[in-house]
Order: sequence, then C-alpha cells, then structure tokens
Amino acid sequence: MKNRNFIVQGDICWSKDPQTLETRAGAFLVCAGGKSAGVFSRLPEQYAAFPLIDYSGRLIIPGLADLHAHAPQFAFRGLGMDLELLDWLEIRAFPEEAKYRDLQYARRAYGLLAGHLKRGPNTRLVIFATVHTPATLLLMDLLEESGLVSLAGKVNMDRNSPDILREASAAASLAETEEWLDACFSRNNGSGYKNTAPILTPRFIPSCSDELMRGLGELRRKYRLPVQSHLSENKKEIEWVRELCPESESYGAAYDRFGLFGGESPAAPVVMAHCVWSGEKEITLMAGRGVFAAHCPQSNTNLSSGIAPVRRFLEAGVPAGLGSDVAGGAHSSIFRAMVDAIQVSKLRRPLLGLDEKALSLEEAFYLGTAGGGAFFERCGMGRSGSFDPGCDFDALVIDDTDIAAPFELSLRDRLERTVYLSGERHIAAKYARGRKIETAG
Amino acid sequence: MKNRNFIVQGDICWSKDPQTLETRAGAFLVCAGGKSAGVFSRLPEQYAAFPLIDYSGRLIIPGLADLHAHAPQFAFRGLGMDLELLDWLEIRAFPEEAKYRDLQYARRAYGLLAGHLKRGPNTRLVIFATVHTPATLLLMDLLEESGLVSLAGKVNMDRNSPDILREASAAASLAETEEWLDACFSRNNGSGYKNTAPILTPRFIPSCSDELMRGLGELRRKYRLPVQSHLSENKKEIEWVRELCPESESYGAAYDRFGLFGGESPAAPVVMAHCVWSGEKEITLMAGRGVFAAHCPQSNTNLSSGIAPVRRFLEAGVPAGLGSDVAGGAHSSIFRAMVDAIQVSKLRRPLLGLDEKALSLEEAFYLGTAGGGAFFERCGMGRSGSFDPGCDFDALVIDDTDIAAPFELSLRDRLERTVYLSGERHIAAKYARGRKIETAG
Repeated sequence: MKNRNFIVQGDICWSKDPQTLETRAGAFLVCAGGKSAGVFSRLPEQYAAFPLIDYSGRLIIPGLADLHAHAPQFAFRGLGMDLELLDWLEIRAFPEEAKYRDLQYARRAYGLLAGHLKRGPNTRLVIFATVHTPATLLLMDLLEESGLVSLAGKVNMDRNSPDILREASAAASLAETEEWLDACFSRNNGSGYKNTAPILTPRFIPSCSDELMRGLGELRRKYRLPVQSHLSENKKEIEWVRELCPESESYGAAYDRFGLFGGESPAAPVVMAHCVWSGEKEITLMAGRGVFAAHCPQSNTNLSSGIAPVRRFLEAGVPAGLGSDVAGGAHSSIFRAMVDAIQVSKLRRPLLGLDEKALSLEEAFYLGTAGGGAFFERCGMGRSGSFDPGCDFDALVIDDTDIAAPFELSLRDRLERTVYLSGERHIAAKYARGRKIETAG
Repeated sequence: MKNRNFIVQGDICWSKDPQTLETRAGAFLVCAGGKSAGVFSRLPEQYAAFPLIDYSGRLIIPGLADLHAHAPQFAFRGLGMDLELLDWLEIRAFPEEAKYRDLQYARRAYGLLAGHLKRGPNTRLVIFATVHTPATLLLMDLLEESGLVSLAGKVNMDRNSPDILREASAAASLAETEEWLDACFSRNNGSGYKNTAPILTPRFIPSCSDELMRGLGELRRKYRLPVQSHLSENKKEIEWVRELCPESESYGAAYDRFGLFGGESPAAPVVMAHCVWSGEKEITLMAGRGVFAAHCPQSNTNLSSGIAPVRRFLEAGVPAGLGSDVAGGAHSSIFRAMVDAIQVSKLRRPLLGLDEKALSLEEAFYLGTAGGGAFFERCGMGRSGSFDPGCDFDALVIDDTDIAAPFELSLRDRLERTVYLSGERHIAAKYARGRKIETAG
C-alpha cells in the first residue's frame, strides 16, 4: 500500500454540495492508503514523510462518474446518428451486439474501449455488456486491468428482441446469469475483482418476461446485487410498457413489482437510465426507494427522446448522476455530459414554457462527480467524486494552460472552461483509488 | 502562383447539394491556381506535371465556414455560461469588448484568437470586431496573415449601449466607419487585403439609431458592402424591436427600411445571425432578398433563446449556413456547430410537437461547408465549401485513424465520425485558396 500514500499539490476544486464548489489554490490533497485524507492549505505534520507530487498551476478535481453506457456500442459511437431509436437499434445496435458471441471480436472491440476509457476523464462507470457471458467477463477483466472502478452487467433479454440476441428462455437467462456471477466471484483464485463488480442488467421491461424479472429479483436479494436498467426514455416505449404491465401505475412500478426498484437492501441500489418522462408518482417512488437517475442528456437529444426533469430530481431528493449512454450519446466524457446537461436544461423554459431554473455549472459538476460517485458508495465500492476525507482518491490533474485567456481567471472560471473546452490532451494525470492510470496507452 | 498548382490524393467527400454527399475513395483533387479543377478517379494527363501530395487513407473535405462570431468574445468563451443574455452582456461581453480600445490588449487577445483559428477546421469566417477602428484593423491584419478568408466588421452602436462602448453620435459612428473603410481599402499600399474584406456591422436594431441605420444603408450602396447583424434571436429582444420600430411588420423589415436587408446589389449580400423566431413573413422576405441565415445552435441553447426553424429555411429557399457565435457559443469549430444543429433539430418534435424531420448529417455538413461558403461567393470572395471545378481550393485533410473502429467504415461513416468526434489534433493539413495554413502555430 506504500505507493498509495502521497500528496499532490495544485489548484484544487470539488463539490461540497450541488450548489457549492470548493476551490483552493496551491493547496495539498493527501492520499492515504488510496483514500483522501483531505485538502489542506498548509500540510499537516503527520504527512511530512509522504512523497509530494508537484502539480502547481494545474487543476486537480475529482474523477468523473459515468452512470450509464453500453460497452458493445462504443465501436459505433458517432455513427448512424440520423436514425430514429427503433431503426438505430435494428440497423446498428443489435447486429453489433450480436458480434460479441465471438470472443476474438470482443477482445478487439473492448480493447479499443478500455484504451479510450483510460485516456478520458471518467474514473468510474456503470456499464452494460451484452447477453454473452464470456465477452462480459472479458470486458470486466479489461476494466479491472485498466485501473478504473466499474460495475458491469451481463444483459438479460428473453422477449421482444431479435433472434440473434434473445436468450432461449427465462430459465436459461437466469442460469447463465448465475454462471456469470460465479465466475465473477471466483476470479483471481476466489478473491474476485478488486475494482470491478457485477450489476444485474435486465435490458428493460419490454425485453424481459415476468418470469425472468421475478428470477432477477430473487438473485438481487440472494447476492445483494445492484441493478441497472432503462426507465421512461421515450413516449412510445412508455406506452408499450403500459400495455405490457397494465397493473403497474408507472414504468418504475413495473420494475418494483419484481423487487428491482430499490428499497430494502442498502447494498443493492438501483440506477435507472434516462427518466426523461418520469412523472410525479415515479419521481416520488424513486426518491423513496433511493433509485438513482442516470441523466443522459446527449442520448436523449440524439434519439429525439426529450429533456429529463433534472431540476425536479434535485428538488425531490432523487439521487442523480450523469451518463454518456454511449452510443446513444457519441461522447464518453462526462465533461461533455455536464455541458449537455446544462445546455438542454436551458431549452426547457423557452420550448416548454416552464418557469424553471437551468442547471448551473456547480450543479452539473456535482452530478458528474459526487452525484454519480455516491452510487458506488451505495454499492460498497467506496465513495468517489469528492475530496472529503474518507473518499476514494479518484482525481484528475488538468493542464489547462493552452486554454489561454488574455486575463487572470479564478479557479471556478478555469473549471468552467475545462468543463466546456478541455479534451483528452488536457489530462496531465489520472488516479483511481490512489493508483495512477496510464492515460497515454 | 506556381505553388498553388498541385494535386492531393486521398478519400474525398463533399456536398453536391443539401441532401447529397459525394464520396470518392483514393481519388485526386486538383488545385490549379488556388481553385479546384475537380475530383478525378484517374488523373487527367493535363495535370501530370503538378506535384502530388499523398494523403492516402486520409479524409479530404472542404474547409468549413463560420458565418457568425465575435472576435473580442473569444477571450471569454466557455465562461459565464450560467448567465442569462442581458446579465451576460453586462457582466462579460461589454466590459471585455471595451478593453479593445487598448491596442496592446487587442494584440494579445486577437493573437490568441488567430492562432486558435489557424489550428481549427474553419477556413472562412464572418466576424464582428468592436467599435474601435484601430483594433478592428489589427484583427483584419492578423486574419490576413493567417491565410484564412474572412469578412470582418467594425461594430456600429450609438444607442441603448453602455457608456464604455456607445459611440458619441450617428454622425461620429458613420465618420469612423468611413475612416475604417478607407484604411481597409488603402492597406498594402492601396491594393487592399487579399483574403480579408470589410463588412458593415450594425450591432442590432436596438443599439443603432435610425440616423445611423440610414447612413449605413447609404454606405452599403456607395461601396457595395455586405452587411452582418443579428435577427430575431430571442422573444424579449423581438418585443423591444417592435416597440422601437412599430411601423415595421417584422424585425427583418426594420432593417429593410434602411436598405440593410439584401436586395438590389448582388455584391452586397446580408447575413443575419440566429433567426430563431423568424416567422413566415420574415422568412419570405429573407428568401426574396437572398438574406443569409447564420444558424448558431449552440449559442441559441446557451442563451436559452430557442431552436431556429432551419428546416423551414431550407424549404423556403433562405440561403443558410452555420455560425459558432463565439462566445454565445463556447466552441469555434463548425464541426461542433454541425452536431449541435442536428441535435437541437431532434428536439423540435418531442418538445414542440412538430411533425418535422430532423436535420440529417448531409444537411448539416452542407450548411457548414457549401451553405456558408456561398456567402463568400456572393461577396465576390470566391465560392468555398465544395470541390466543384472553379471553387476556391479550401480543404481539410483529416487523419481519423485514431477514431478507431473494429470494423470497416464507409467514407460516409468516417465523415460522420469526424463530424461528431474529431478535434484539432485530427487536422493533418489545412488549405485556403490553395495555400497551406500552418496549423501547428
């Protein structure tokens, strides 16, 4: 653990809460055993022996968390964006996902993804794989190797899906899921992964039979597993769910029937992507059950879904973070998701006639760091996205010198510019849980 | 002129019309005297003596045109984006613009801008300077040196503006404008600029008195000058213009009263930024007068203005291109404006309930290349944005190898990815009018 005791010095910014950004110029951030020991203007005596890494003049901020992405879709991000959702699934997504039965193809494609993720600003992610167990394990192995912290899921889908992807039956899907979970737990001679964990992944209500959902609910309780899925993304989909589950009073309630919408076990939280059209009843249920909303503004735009009511999530106490939804979103960086979130929130007033405040930079930055980072804490994988003492040491060092200005900028202004204008090349260093991630790879 | 005769070989894409993309793999594009002589699968004998530059495996596309930007706002792009329009103007834009009375400050700030523009994908721009003649000329000198092709304007504003920027009177503003024009025409020992030209720049109706507008209309006729301004950007502004010009039946008509809304002289076209809320009467007037719409989707989002009816512009025959509107938009790249234009067009249906087709990649690419490039032709500065024979040779060479995919991509797919995912580092070479632009500077 020795190499996880050190100090970084630089211009440090992090979220205290959704409205408050903390900034400390030329301060010290201490990493002790892979966790933050706090930010200090003068270095406490007790850390005098820790090696100091001098990042003077650079920004140091928490690592970003991507709460929703599809690993097999990375290969075609930024392609076919003119297609509507159903055509896009049929022409791009499903045929591509089917390729992952071929482990060699998966190795090539997921290898590109892992390299890309290492170079980008995200340190944590919650991600869909495909229905294929070997390729899902391969993805998890690559994520583990990368040093990033992640939750990844073998997808379940046993109805309303193309033959090339649909699992033979609920029983087969559940058996395969248990086999996958066993393999995860027995990885590394039985000690399991260090930075990677399985998450149950029913694709969404329309593609999972009641029997499958019931079985996944049982697996969730048996292993205390977290769950990821899709919720209230677009109006046609919601109509479909209403037809499939006439007894449920909301889309969320359709998950809840099977014990897949949060509640009882704090170690088994749920994250739902999109929530674009979640109404008051669904929002109240999410808040009560601690269900996380993964806001994916770019995907919701690209797929003509709409603009999620993030201001309501914040007011109602729905825990929320940001998602890239690659490849519904073309960009994996959560900096981009912050900008997208702010931008679409500004269209709700002029287009929907709502008297609603747009998201601020502080709020978007919070969502992309501490907001999403809280999901990992709920999963027992350490809190991230903040430098409060006890948080995992996930940090980005940003060299923003070439985003030049002819005048002096405050730290807050430099952070705003970084969010809007930075790219991979501005990431001077990246750490997850106190370990440096090789960004040049 | 010898060095402007050459051939580039690579994977060539350009717009034939808004719906049609031409793609030629491994083809030859001939530059003869700074103009395109066409794209050829086999090189015609007559060009056999021209030197060949081998860009095999790279994309070659027309240079992009930015039809609307504010040079003095570049310094604070990506800052203060949480502010609403009026606060943003008061806190960020006006105080910053006032600094350009100091030529030393202007030199530092415009130097950063010129370097940035050289590295980016745009080869043409239509840009606002400030009210200050010396700084405007300095900007034009720097643009001329850069090799980019541009129209730049000294701003006119004599009412409803802060003291630090408002010109003393209409007469003073007009006298200053003629002085600026004289200086432009007498640059380079009387031969004027080669790639840079003046464009009349009344800020917008609210900040220009009738007397000033009348005088600018006279200058337009006298010198056959093009005009740039703002039109129908947001609802409050439109209300204000209605109060100021009760006799005009639209915002556009308020310009038209003074001969500043296109028409008579083909060499003196008009480009209007935004046109978010242009109604049918205004659109009809624009189409009839050949007034260009500079669609600035990111700015219209950042400033909560709304989403312009670009589909209507295309249908109604309003000539249109894209604008970054830096710093209402944080990004100067017209690739980003293409993506923004597609994305916001996808929100019109779910949010406004319109049965309207979103912009396609082809349409957005057309707007950002040939669409905007047509404005320069109308100004007598050469047509750009296409490789049709006779067009100016404005070209980008894109090395997209690191936007990797685990499968073969068509040229059209590679172009889509370039639009969505490329950055400065992907620009392997850049030409304007057959001259190479130094992108590393």
